[in-house]
Amino acid sequence: MSTMSPKDCIAPVFESISPAEFFYRNQQMAGFGNTSQAVYSAVRELVENSLDSCEDAQRLPLIEVQIKSDLSDIIQITVMDNGTGLSDQHVPEAFAKVLYGSKYHQRQHRGTFGLGATMAILYGQITTDLPVIVHTRSFESKGSLYSLYIDVEKNQPIIKSCEESHREHEGTTVTITLRGDLKRVQDRVLEYLRLTTISSPHAKIYVEINDEIKEEIGRWSQVIPPPLIDSKPHPRAADMELLRRLVALQGNMRLQDFLIDSFQKVGLVTSERFLKFISFNPNVRVNTLTRDEIGRISTALRKFDGFEAPDSKSLSPIGKSELLNSIASIFNISTLHYAQRGPSEWQGNPFILEGVIASSDDFPKSDIPSLYRFANRVPLLYDSNEDTLTKIVKRINWNRYNLGSSSSVSLFVHLCSTRIPYKAAGKQSIGSVPEIEEEVLSLLRELGRLFSKSIKRRERAQRDIRKMREFSKNFRQLAQFSAQLADYHDVPQTTHLVKQLFEVDTDE
Amino acid sequence: MSTMSPKDCIAPVFESISPAEFFYRNQQMAGFGNTSQAVYSAVRELVENSLDSCEDAQRLPLIEVQIKSDLSDIIQITVMDNGTGLSDQHVPEAFAKVLYGSKYHQRQHRGTFGLGATMAILYGQITTDLPVIVHTRSFESKGSLYSLYIDVEKNQPIIKSCEESHREHEGTTVTITLRGDLKRVQDRVLEYLRLTTISSPHAKIYVEINDEIKEEIGRWSQVIPPPLIDSKPHPRAADMELLRRLVALQGNMRLQDFLIDSFQKVGLVTSERFLKFISFNPNVRVNTLTRDEIGRISTALRKFDGFEAPDSKSLSPIGKSELLNSIASIFNISTLHYAQRGPSEWQGNPFILEGVIASSDDFPKSDIPSLYRFANRVPLLYDSNEDTLTKIVKRINWNRYNLGSSSSVSLFVHLCSTRIPYKAAGKQSIGSVPEIEEEVLSLLRELGRLFSKSIKRRERAQRDIRKMREFSKNFRQLAQFSAQLADYHDVPQTTHLVKQLFEVDTDE
Repeated sequence: MSTMSPKDCIAPVFESISPAEFFYRNQQMAGFGNTSQAVYSAVRELVENSLDSCEDAQRLPLIEVQIKSDLSDIIQITVMDNGTGLSDQHVPEAFAKVLYGSKYHQRQHRGTFGLGATMAILYGQITTDLPVIVHTRSFESKGSLYSLYIDVEKNQPIIKSCEESHREHEGTTVTITLRGDLKRVQDRVLEYLRLTTISSPHAKIYVEINDEIKEEIGRWSQVIPPPLIDSKPHPRAADMELLRRLVALQGNMRLQDFLIDSFQKVGLVTSERFLKFISFNPNVRVNTLTRDEIGRISTALRKFDGFEAPDSKSLSPIGKSELLNSIASIFNISTLHYAQRGPSEWQGNPFILEGVIASSDDFPKSDIPSLYRFANRVPLLYDSNEDTLTKIVKRINWNRYNLGSSSSVSLFVHLCSTRIPYKAAGKQSIGSVPEIEEEVLSLLRELGRLFSKSIKRRERAQRDIRKMREFSKNFRQLAQFSAQLADYHDVPQTTHLVKQLFEVDTDE
Repeated sequence: MSTMSPKDCIAPVFESISPAEFFYRNQQMAGFGNTSQAVYSAVRELVENSLDSCEDAQRLPLIEVQIKSDLSDIIQITVMDNGTGLSDQHVPEAFAKVLYGSKYHQRQHRGTFGLGATMAILYGQITTDLPVIVHTRSFESKGSLYSLYIDVEKNQPIIKSCEESHREHEGTTVTITLRGDLKRVQDRVLEYLRLTTISSPHAKIYVEINDEIKEEIGRWSQVIPPPLIDSKPHPRAADMELLRRLVALQGNMRLQDFLIDSFQKVGLVTSERFLKFISFNPNVRVNTLTRDEIGRISTALRKFDGFEAPDSKSLSPIGKSELLNSIASIFNISTLHYAQRGPSEWQGNPFILEGVIASSDDFPKSDIPSLYRFANRVPLLYDSNEDTLTKIVKRINWNRYNLGSSSSVSLFVHLCSTRIPYKAAGKQSIGSVPEIEEEVLSLLRELGRLFSKSIKRRERAQRDIRKMREFSKNFRQLAQFSAQLADYHDVPQTTHLVKQLFEVDTDE
């Protein structure tokens, strides 16, 4: 093959682009792919931020969602909360800079880092050229009103205006104006908000759409979930990148102390066992480790099977009574069972699964139960077919669990983790992770067994009632007959005898 | 509600992260979510880059893929091409900086911008701590050998070593070492490579896996697709962001000249009509336009229905004979039909659809034809259930098209566009875009009709053959009988009469 002259071929020209530019070019990757999804995603991102902020403030969330559209396709979305509010110094970047956000904590959060709300603002800006309006009050201020654009090429905020403006309470109100298709997505938005109160039963949401729809949803529980505690990384999370960062933080610490200090669930005994496993001197100073040695430690940390399961202080499951109660508040439920699995870990990230199996005439009839998906207290409504939870529901033979083909049964599955393996930045579906899949399978089987048991128990109870009626009748006749024979006027009561008999019987 | 004291609530701490950090934290969004998918994605990203580079060089691609794994899960992937190669100044950033890549052109490319190969390198680095090895030669050099890491926090390359190293021809060889699960994904990788030669029939691919598998696939065509011409944006692509950028480029140009100069398919007549539509003075200088006026022009550009369909010089469909031939080279085909739609546009991005309907014993039997998806000459193997192409295949009533339940029919659909609306950075499935969906539906129906017609034609042909045989027999008997009656020794030939008869008949 001959080498061609430069003239014949196109020499590539290179450039570097900002993350804002990347998501501007690939809006659909962040959930803004078409005009109806854009409306849905904008509402969702703002509501999630609001709920996270109320959790930080340890307050019962009170969220107001207002959607207004004129005759054209211009839609104004306002979400108001009673969260922490934002300090003035952070407002411009928090809203108008992609990949800027609350510092990455090793604890459960609704959003992925620094993308969602900014994407909604970007979408509004490029479709209507209107800035985002932010009215916020934190503990430091009496209230500020901002009007912001995003400089997409530089990924920097442009402050159009900024003034002091009184706000009665702490919290944030964000208004985005975008071009979209409200009609096609309105029902989905309402469903999203209703399901949000299932996974955040302590939230009250007012929603108002065009003065036509006015709804108050929740609150189903007065209990604020306890504040989450940041946890140290689990040793199995220590890929090369993380391990090198941790080593850089600790200077000349002894290797054993470093392990105990940097990771959760590693104490004297475990660290000793681990160091023996990799034949490293516990007294070596971590800043003398070569890149190669760090690599060997990283590999070993992920392979050593002597670490305990991660702790769950950084996780916030909904909880049995809260979840059952909130589902029963939204749907007209006949039976309801709860199960929980975990904490387990995937790649060092702790996770808990909880699930409910419920029957109700509100659910569609099908051979396979319908599925409501939740991740870190966020309901997922789109892209269910590729979601790993859906796939596992389909993998199970539900006939085994007495669901019958005529039943209307639904599953509610909530995955909470310090990291949710979303397939895309639009956070619509959960990717395939073997550790999670295994636990989902166990959870669903447990729910199936609970359901099956309750069906059997109900059937037995119905049989018992029939038997009891029969006995009752016979006893009464026998009593009457005996009374006649004995010339008794008062027929003796037999009801208590039958009851005694069946109380024993049903207790078996 | 009382305002809480700062002590009670968690004041958020903010930070900004690099795009490398974002994708490090969200690997599954870029197709690196688990150990088997990571192997697949790494091969795919490198092969795509190689094919794009050969296209730039206008050479017939010769790609070598070598995958080696020892007994453990360490896998070394090498992809070698005969493309343009890279200049020394670009090598470090092109491979070790996220969102750095070939300048964004308004033409069809396999990859999305500046993410794929870098993600594979990042994944290798965090799982094995081994650098990427790049051996490249461009028209400017005799060859250079680089060993690179990525500084994830800063999103900058770290050059571990760099030396002159002779390479015989222009092109690039990249070696990545990562931890993964080769066994589970090996068949998928091979399928991907085979399908790649369907959508790039001018490519020859050698693949070698662990000295066990050695395969040479293609080349099915000697024709290099013609070089693509960058086109100006279509006016319907002019969202606020793009329009402001174009205005900034053009300084004090007249508005009408600006429209003609900046957009494709806008000449004197169209621009005049458009300016009348929005009641703007054609002589206004664009640098005097207010933000509000630019906003109104942007809205109008997207609503005005007087623009022509976009041109397709920037697109590279596979082509009828190439696609039919390459499919027939890979599968054992019995029937085969091709159709094309477009160019059309979605949000100003031109696109062409082409499709093939084929029957073969190689395909699974089903009521609904199986589907092979291609986007910009790249086969898509994962996440088919959420892909908009799959959804539309399912929406069609295939019974109408005489497929029968016993047939083994497959569809091959290729979408090419200056922008593919991938749902995630992992580029596995195409998102829902109404303009594309409508065209896919038309394409599939056309393919259905072609198939149905050919089935009917074949049935008629079979009927005709039966009839012809019958006639033939009768004619022969008649001829024999007549010959006997007339005392002729030679029975006259009748075959040509029957043939004549049926040639007329089948031509109807």
